[in-house]
Amino acid sequence: MTAVGIDAIEIWSGKLKLDLPNTFAPVKGDDPEKYTKGLGLEDSSFPDTYEDIVTMGANAAKQLMDRKGLKPSDIGRIDVATESAFDHSKPVSTYIAGCLEQVYDGDFRHANKGERKFACVAGTQSIDDAYNWIKAGRNRGRAALVVATDTALYARGDPGEATQGAGAVAMLITEEPSIVELSTEQGYGSMDETDFLKPNQQFPSVDGKRSMQVYLARMREALEDFESVAWDTHPEDFEYIPFHTPFPGMVRKAGLLGFRHMIRDTEIEDELEPEIGRQPRETDFESREAFEEAIRAHMDELKRTDRYQSWYADTIAPTLELSRRVGNWYTGSVHIARASALRHAAANGTDLVGQKLLVGSYGSGAQAEIHAETVRDGWKEEIEGLNIDDQLESRYDLTWSEYELVHDVHEYDKETDIDVEEFTQPSGEFVFTGWGRMNERRYDYVE
Amino acid sequence: MTAVGIDAIEIWSGKLKLDLPNTFAPVKGDDPEKYTKGLGLEDSSFPDTYEDIVTMGANAAKQLMDRKGLKPSDIGRIDVATESAFDHSKPVSTYIAGCLEQVYDGDFRHANKGERKFACVAGTQSIDDAYNWIKAGRNRGRAALVVATDTALYARGDPGEATQGAGAVAMLITEEPSIVELSTEQGYGSMDETDFLKPNQQFPSVDGKRSMQVYLARMREALEDFESVAWDTHPEDFEYIPFHTPFPGMVRKAGLLGFRHMIRDTEIEDELEPEIGRQPRETDFESREAFEEAIRAHMDELKRTDRYQSWYADTIAPTLELSRRVGNWYTGSVHIARASALRHAAANGTDLVGQKLLVGSYGSGAQAEIHAETVRDGWKEEIEGLNIDDQLESRYDLTWSEYELVHDVHEYDKETDIDVEEFTQPSGEFVFTGWGRMNERRYDYVE
Repeated sequence: MTAVGIDAIEIWSGKLKLDLPNTFAPVKGDDPEKYTKGLGLEDSSFPDTYEDIVTMGANAAKQLMDRKGLKPSDIGRIDVATESAFDHSKPVSTYIAGCLEQVYDGDFRHANKGERKFACVAGTQSIDDAYNWIKAGRNRGRAALVVATDTALYARGDPGEATQGAGAVAMLITEEPSIVELSTEQGYGSMDETDFLKPNQQFPSVDGKRSMQVYLARMREALEDFESVAWDTHPEDFEYIPFHTPFPGMVRKAGLLGFRHMIRDTEIEDELEPEIGRQPRETDFESREAFEEAIRAHMDELKRTDRYQSWYADTIAPTLELSRRVGNWYTGSVHIARASALRHAAANGTDLVGQKLLVGSYGSGAQAEIHAETVRDGWKEEIEGLNIDDQLESRYDLTWSEYELVHDVHEYDKETDIDVEEFTQPSGEFVFTGWGRMNERRYDYVE
Repeated sequence: MTAVGIDAIEIWSGKLKLDLPNTFAPVKGDDPEKYTKGLGLEDSSFPDTYEDIVTMGANAAKQLMDRKGLKPSDIGRIDVATESAFDHSKPVSTYIAGCLEQVYDGDFRHANKGERKFACVAGTQSIDDAYNWIKAGRNRGRAALVVATDTALYARGDPGEATQGAGAVAMLITEEPSIVELSTEQGYGSMDETDFLKPNQQFPSVDGKRSMQVYLARMREALEDFESVAWDTHPEDFEYIPFHTPFPGMVRKAGLLGFRHMIRDTEIEDELEPEIGRQPRETDFESREAFEEAIRAHMDELKRTDRYQSWYADTIAPTLELSRRVGNWYTGSVHIARASALRHAAANGTDLVGQKLLVGSYGSGAQAEIHAETVRDGWKEEIEGLNIDDQLESRYDLTWSEYELVHDVHEYDKETDIDVEEFTQPSGEFVFTGWGRMNERRYDYVE
């Protein structure tokens, strides 16, 4: 059977930066470590005045097409995943295709364009749809372009304000891919939840505590579902485990939960027994509550073991290096986590070919998806093509008052009094230029 | 190769009715035939005060599950297609699954839920994704539930106000389906267009004339693209050709264009030559404009031939019987057209098994998709299970002032002064009951 998976990845960060310990924390009167240690975040990427989900997505896609030498007719499908859409009918993929057609010969006239929405999990869903499209024999030799693009903004003063972010990830899905092959097997944990939503509003209503519980519950169900069709996973099966990363602190919890699940009835549980005992089993308890309390106490001990800490440092920590510097990119977040791990491996000379990743995606509302990926021969060359370090270094560092101003610019319901100047100079990229007569957003390419 | 396609269809209409010739036309001071002959519409279905895209979708899905004797664990995927979503993050499929879980034992915990948006074409895109998921071997023997649900409302006074509608179509996609098998081959015509959009607004901005041109241009490209991978189509290849039907008058134009395209260089063109000459060929003209004018003149003549009129009466007219009575259901519209044709065949005792349909879907923004379907053994029994006639007969017939009131109720930005009473009594269905603390919409099942 032909391998299908991710052939290329490009990342485009919003061009502004909000420094959490040095700009955000002082204004909030907080200890900077609340952000750097608690949430695990240094900076948020933020969109400049001429940036939005279309420009970031089109810029990531153009980088990808240029690096791979693609022309529009090589692409048979363009799906955009976002929870920041500004139109209830016309999909973002049409705007992005329209941008790309400004700079390439030819067009995407016979490509199937679409848009998927399910909070942060839709990027992975779009990859899955592309995989299925190829496996179903409908691609005619063409590739699928998947763009996960979001401006993850919260209302000013919302607890989520510290976890904002903005950026896009473009991925090319093909037969015989260079980076990773996706597993046919997938696991899902999915229930109707009211943890995070945007009912007719730009900024989310969030029940933060509930959202963390739901993330973990759905992720556990997805792992069990994956195991029911794949195999009983073991911590050493995977070189890296990229998770959806609303903030790195969330992934610390998910990593611990996953490790505890995977080591049950393995030699690792045996090895740890003298130190922390065996895991509590539900059948040994009178009530669910008593069991859960015992599990929590056990996990506190598990977390402190060298065995767990070294596994976490090897398998999870490398997935967080980018997200720590950019914040939450919603649909792009888990794809940033994968890219972060692969960059780490490339920088450290790790040979990944044939190694496995376990990828845990999540969207509030709520659904987790887990699948495995097998690293392919061309991964290193592709990943070394990323210019994300340069992008992050050259972001404009916002003062607090500049942050307040640019947040207002991006708030739909707010009229900004003055014509706000951009903070950075666009060059070789798509920019938002204003509204047309039908209230459509318009874009140009700036040389 | 296993056949994959549509195993069951259920339709749920909004429970109110706006009578166009008798209620709408008099208030507008129009000749009723402007609606009945020009647009080809008798009535619009309209949602009662307790109805919305979730209730209609969940009610259609429940009818489908009940008739097929399905339990939640039989479903591995729930996709909702809509351009009337009220949440920028949480997909409608989670709300619909939550409704269904109120009335069935078990849950959809391991089903992949999602939402697709691309104006009216997303219902077909969701069917395609489900088809691909099964063909890719990821369904584990389970079926996919696809729900196309919309409240197609326009601003009061907008020219589109006469083409409103509200309803949902639920479809079950399976291996060895009862109704139709889908072709692997698909054709697309897709370009970035500003013909109809809803930028941060509930009701659309529409350029009506442009939208009709774009519909026809994209549909022609999709047919050519389909032919490039399937075969040169001929009018007699298909028992019916269901098109997306914003209003039946649009399909009259699409049918004529399709017929003209398909008969070129066939015995039908030879047969018609003495009567109307051969079709103009672009190479015979000095300019594109001159060619297009000649084509238009030729099509005016073609339209009047007995050959065309009898083909239209057999192949196209039966697809419009339902849409004439319900208006535009956006994502559900082309699926109403297919159901309408199959009902017509069942009522007339036509044997359809093994016969082909050509299905032309369209979404503004803009994209057309064309694929073929082959009718399967169980089609008649399935189609005879529809209760749509009873639903349409029992709709409440709105007076003009009632229409004005209920339009206000469904407009998000309008506060209605009084607590508007429902016009119909819900029974055995899901209803909207109000907002929760996070501004989420809430639903109950009424016995």
